[in-house]
Amino acid sequence: MGALRRKLTRAGLPGLLVTHLPDLRYLCGFTGSSAALAVTRRGARLFTDGRYTAQAAAETKAAKVQIVSNPPAVAAVQWLAAQPGVEMAGFDPAHTTVAGLTALKTALPYRLRRSFLAALPVAFVESLRQVKDEDELSVMREAALLGCRLFEHILNEFRPGITEIEVAAELEHQARLLGAEGMSFETIVASGPRSALPHGRATAFALPRRGFLTLDFGVILKGYCSDMTRTVFLGKPKPKERRAYAAVLEAQEAAVAAVTSGASCGEVDEAARGVLRREGLAEAFSHSTGHGVGLEIHEPPRVGSGQSARLLPGMVITIEPGIYLPGEFGIRIEDMVAVTRNGGQVLTPAPKALIEL
Amino acid sequence: MGALRRKLTRAGLPGLLVTHLPDLRYLCGFTGSSAALAVTRRGARLFTDGRYTAQAAAETKAAKVQIVSNPPAVAAVQWLAAQPGVEMAGFDPAHTTVAGLTALKTALPYRLRRSFLAALPVAFVESLRQVKDEDELSVMREAALLGCRLFEHILNEFRPGITEIEVAAELEHQARLLGAEGMSFETIVASGPRSALPHGRATAFALPRRGFLTLDFGVILKGYCSDMTRTVFLGKPKPKERRAYAAVLEAQEAAVAAVTSGASCGEVDEAARGVLRREGLAEAFSHSTGHGVGLEIHEPPRVGSGQSARLLPGMVITIEPGIYLPGEFGIRIEDMVAVTRNGGQVLTPAPKALIEL
Repeated sequence: MGALRRKLTRAGLPGLLVTHLPDLRYLCGFTGSSAALAVTRRGARLFTDGRYTAQAAAETKAAKVQIVSNPPAVAAVQWLAAQPGVEMAGFDPAHTTVAGLTALKTALPYRLRRSFLAALPVAFVESLRQVKDEDELSVMREAALLGCRLFEHILNEFRPGITEIEVAAELEHQARLLGAEGMSFETIVASGPRSALPHGRATAFALPRRGFLTLDFGVILKGYCSDMTRTVFLGKPKPKERRAYAAVLEAQEAAVAAVTSGASCGEVDEAARGVLRREGLAEAFSHSTGHGVGLEIHEPPRVGSGQSARLLPGMVITIEPGIYLPGEFGIRIEDMVAVTRNGGQVLTPAPKALIEL
Repeated sequence: MGALRRKLTRAGLPGLLVTHLPDLRYLCGFTGSSAALAVTRRGARLFTDGRYTAQAAAETKAAKVQIVSNPPAVAAVQWLAAQPGVEMAGFDPAHTTVAGLTALKTALPYRLRRSFLAALPVAFVESLRQVKDEDELSVMREAALLGCRLFEHILNEFRPGITEIEVAAELEHQARLLGAEGMSFETIVASGPRSALPHGRATAFALPRRGFLTLDFGVILKGYCSDMTRTVFLGKPKPKERRAYAAVLEAQEAAVAAVTSGASCGEVDEAARGVLRREGLAEAFSHSTGHGVGLEIHEPPRVGSGQSARLLPGMVITIEPGIYLPGEFGIRIEDMVAVTRNGGQVLTPAPKALIEL
């Protein structure tokens, strides 16, 4: 909250409306599904509804709680407008709908409708979340290690005839039993030629006798997301398949090695992209190298081509180059990496040498 | 698409931008996660990115497909603006962020920035989705019956020491194995005094020896959501608990009986609310009686107090009155009900008499 207030002062904003739930959880700890947080230079107040009376009291730090019967964001804006010295408040244009903004303005006194709410710069609160503190890193390490345990578990579950959906179901069931609150995103299980789909949903098809199998999944632990991908081989790979895997692995490791405090995201991306370009696979690598991760599965920074944002100690990013050869196969290898003063620390130490099953 | 075009004509709109994914799936069948649909009186065009080339070709009906490298909504708006006779297009203010609208306007020729995009009335496309056709009803029946099978399955899984999370995990695992694409929402398993939380997430607490247990869950099948709640009793209920359950059941059945083509949503709500009021439980029933369901878990109409919208054949709504006595217990019973010319048809025929386990 201190860093946020300094940012508000620098932006010349006496007030702030926070409605994006991960931002709100980050700033005051509340995890319910309907709330708004109002912040001024002097205080902060959380608005939520009667379903969350007990939960808000137990969870909320650094803000007073007020239970309201009108929409929380409306109550928050009206409260802000009534605070002495608050003649303007920032709102997040990336997480406020056009209809939502109209409703907020309509709830204000007529003279304030045009002037009171000001669009915040891009990722105003989100960018604070990029650098994780020790408590957050400790939870994220735990989440990442849980992911590794799930990968180890699932390797023992492949039997003839098992379908992609059954693999996903087993992985998700085990995640729940090991304490995950849920999955960070829809589990990707893509086998054989389907591994060439970067976002292959699990299907009712049985795993093939031979071919690549890509598993991309993450768990949520205490609100924080993990994210990892491994590609294994069912049967015996051909030389071309081995070479392709080796190229992706080399690219992935080069990008991990490029993670240092002060490096630009574009430099990290280029470390992976350069390796694949040299192997003639530049075209087959059709996405960015990675992204920030935390309370949301995709957060700033974007680790992509030409991105000038610089890495700072405490950031957690994914490094996940991949290649996709339509009709043939695809390969992706992904780790979560924490940026430290001494380089990148891999949070997902599951094996990356090609596993043949 | 025909009904949509008639609506556009009536609204005096020559063009329409559709970005809300369930609307887009409804109108043209595409199920990917990044797309926009542009509709004029003469044609429709789906814009998506290169990851979805194969999928868009296979799934899309009633629209041409165009693969783009800029954001699909931007491409769609630029295409609309280039169509002869299209001097204005509607956009959905409830599903367009303030930042998103700015990006769309910036992508337009300067002379069109102020005038081209017009906010649609509330639920312009969504309201078409309220009335389901025979194909949709058939999928929703199947999804609802899958829910009933899961309820039956889970009744056999309660053993001493099992936690709420393990119950949720087993239910979700079984759902996947029986063909569900996922759950419609986070499974609610709330036992003992926690049943008094209308949105009790499953916790790591073991089920108590005695008390109510509320299970509220739904599956997704071919994109359509199911939704049902049953409350069972662990051990032997006391007379007060029995009476409370009987009151909720009577309220629920009264509301189901009130479902007829032409009835207002407020009348259906009042049928349940009146019963609970008579039992002195009006205060404990703190939410609406139900909501529409379909491609999204919450759709119009809202079946709440004073709602004047009228039920039409083909609508599918939930009927889910509940009571919540903080520190004591809660009870909720929920069915999915299809509106037919001859009254309401319950799609979730799982038993509702109080089950004692």
